Amino acid sequence: MNRRRLLIFLAGCPFLFLSRIAAADDDLLPSWNDTTPRQNILNFVARVTDETSPHFVPVEERIAVFDNDGTLWCEQPMYVQLSFALDRVKRLASEHPEWKTKQPFKAVLEGDMKAVAASGEKGLVELVMASHTGMTTDEFTAIVSNWMADAQHPKFKRPYTECVYQPMLELLEYLRSHGFKTYIVSGGGVEFMRPWALDVYGIPPEQVVGSTIKTTFDRRDGKPVLMRLPEIDFIDDKAGKPVAINKFIGRRPLMAFGNSDGDFEMLEWTTSGDGPRFGLLVHHTDADREYAYDRKSSIGRLDKGLDAAKPNSWTVVNMKDDWKTIFPDR
Amino acid sequence: MNRRRLLIFLAGCPFLFLSRIAAADDDLLPSWNDTTPRQNILNFVARVTDETSPHFVPVEERIAVFDNDGTLWCEQPMYVQLSFALDRVKRLASEHPEWKTKQPFKAVLEGDMKAVAASGEKGLVELVMASHTGMTTDEFTAIVSNWMADAQHPKFKRPYTECVYQPMLELLEYLRSHGFKTYIVSGGGVEFMRPWALDVYGIPPEQVVGSTIKTTFDRRDGKPVLMRLPEIDFIDDKAGKPVAINKFIGRRPLMAFGNSDGDFEMLEWTTSGDGPRFGLLVHHTDADREYAYDRKSSIGRLDKGLDAAKPNSWTVVNMKDDWKTIFPDR
Repeated sequence: MNRRRLLIFLAGCPFLFLSRIAAADDDLLPSWNDTTPRQNILNFVARVTDETSPHFVPVEERIAVFDNDGTLWCEQPMYVQLSFALDRVKRLASEHPEWKTKQPFKAVLEGDMKAVAASGEKGLVELVMASHTGMTTDEFTAIVSNWMADAQHPKFKRPYTECVYQPMLELLEYLRSHGFKTYIVSGGGVEFMRPWALDVYGIPPEQVVGSTIKTTFDRRDGKPVLMRLPEIDFIDDKAGKPVAINKFIGRRPLMAFGNSDGDFEMLEWTTSGDGPRFGLLVHHTDADREYAYDRKSSIGRLDKGLDAAKPNSWTVVNMKDDWKTIFPDR
Repeated sequence: MNRRRLLIFLAGCPFLFLSRIAAADDDLLPSWNDTTPRQNILNFVARVTDETSPHFVPVEERIAVFDNDGTLWCEQPMYVQLSFALDRVKRLASEHPEWKTKQPFKAVLEGDMKAVAASGEKGLVELVMASHTGMTTDEFTAIVSNWMADAQHPKFKRPYTECVYQPMLELLEYLRSHGFKTYIVSGGGVEFMRPWALDVYGIPPEQVVGSTIKTTFDRRDGKPVLMRLPEIDFIDDKAGKPVAINKFIGRRPLMAFGNSDGDFEMLEWTTSGDGPRFGLLVHHTDADREYAYDRKSSIGRLDKGLDAAKPNSWTVVNMKDDWKTIFPDR
């Protein structure tokens, strides 16, 4: 090969290489339209996983954290865990005749959701304690699994575990195939998510971080058990999320995914780390296929985050435009 | 092959197979003498990792938990973390003139260990708070790393990170090579162990469970930080260990390793699970090569555990007889 031919050959190589990447890329994240969010994700992952890149990050430091409600699965018209609590209060009512006259239980039994809401945070905590505590951890796991097998989303008429976002399932798998450890970091209860997170998201129990109630070690018929106590241990929301990430994971994540102002500090903590970092917010803009809500929603309010996304270089998913499909095929 | 020959051939196969296993086994856990503990470990791991065994356990459920002080590294003549706290109090003394007259600080500065001990748990907590809090998590990591690089064990005249047990390092590696996820579950502080646990034990930050102090999310010069507060969050000892295992790991371990009564409930919780489980206690019996202590020691007391080992089928390592070497070669 003469010198000129060699130069032409070498000049052509990057293009050949790039076109090969592009071809392979077409198969990735198939439920994402090829708009900015998909491109940002692919570019970021290429950058941190390419050993020749100055931004290369070793496998053991590839941590990606995901909020759950509204980020991985549908949180409307009410948090799934609240729906569980209400169902469980109804089921336990026969053992608690006093609930017929006592708020917020009376409201739940009468289906008066306005009165439930009016009971405020105090009422909510009472409902959670009545429905989530007083049993062993193993018993609670069975209760959650049984409920999840039967319960249906009121709008989509399918199990809640099928109201998860297909594009996010693909993203979780895509990140894991590039060496990322994927974590849930949710305001929801850890032991409400663990029983199904491995099957549904491919996320094992030890990678589920969330809110916790206190448990205590006890013995029953000579066998050790962990009893769930009616006392809050930790609320994994807002500024609690970086605290929990530090406590449970002990590394600052490379990537953080959320959808509401409850995820603001998690994204801030993640993306203010040294080197390449990635933050993404799912903006619910699709009233037809899912729900549309943001600044004024009482569930999953996204207000501060929408304003902060641009100055912080966070990617915002416009659900309507950026996602080809919302839920998995049945 | 005629029928008789076939039978002879088939009858010979298991022996061939067994002798192959035995040969390979000789290379495993080389710092362990071939006494009961080594045999129990190898047999248990063979049983749960053999796909044809009725006791086979899928990879994702292979969790092994290790106490740290006295199980993975030397805890005598005092917990390494206490030694760190004392050194740090001395270093900070110039900023705290009041410590010259205030216990337990006065005792530390005068090297009066009896008076330090006499200050009891309350005094100890004061020393930990003064030495472990008031800085960001990143600052504390740097403080621990710097101290660990210089500090030496008073008897062995080597860094504390080289006063780890060679047989246990081999065990950690052996278990990981058989698909186990290895966790530390220690009474010591999580953020005292994380800075060096990956290098020394091959255990990443997210697999270090321990005692925690409270942290809070804050902003400094516009950047988010986590500040360490002078308040205990959780003590990961005794009945706290199963609670922490459930909270952080969310699965009951297959194997648990400890050395003191602080590990009793962890072993009890682990080995009372369904199916095959394994518990092991390191009994410090080697005054020449390390230390000899058990029922009457104020550090790492092993009393209840020694009595409970047999009825619970826990393996007990007699350090003097069962370990060929104690520390890694330098």
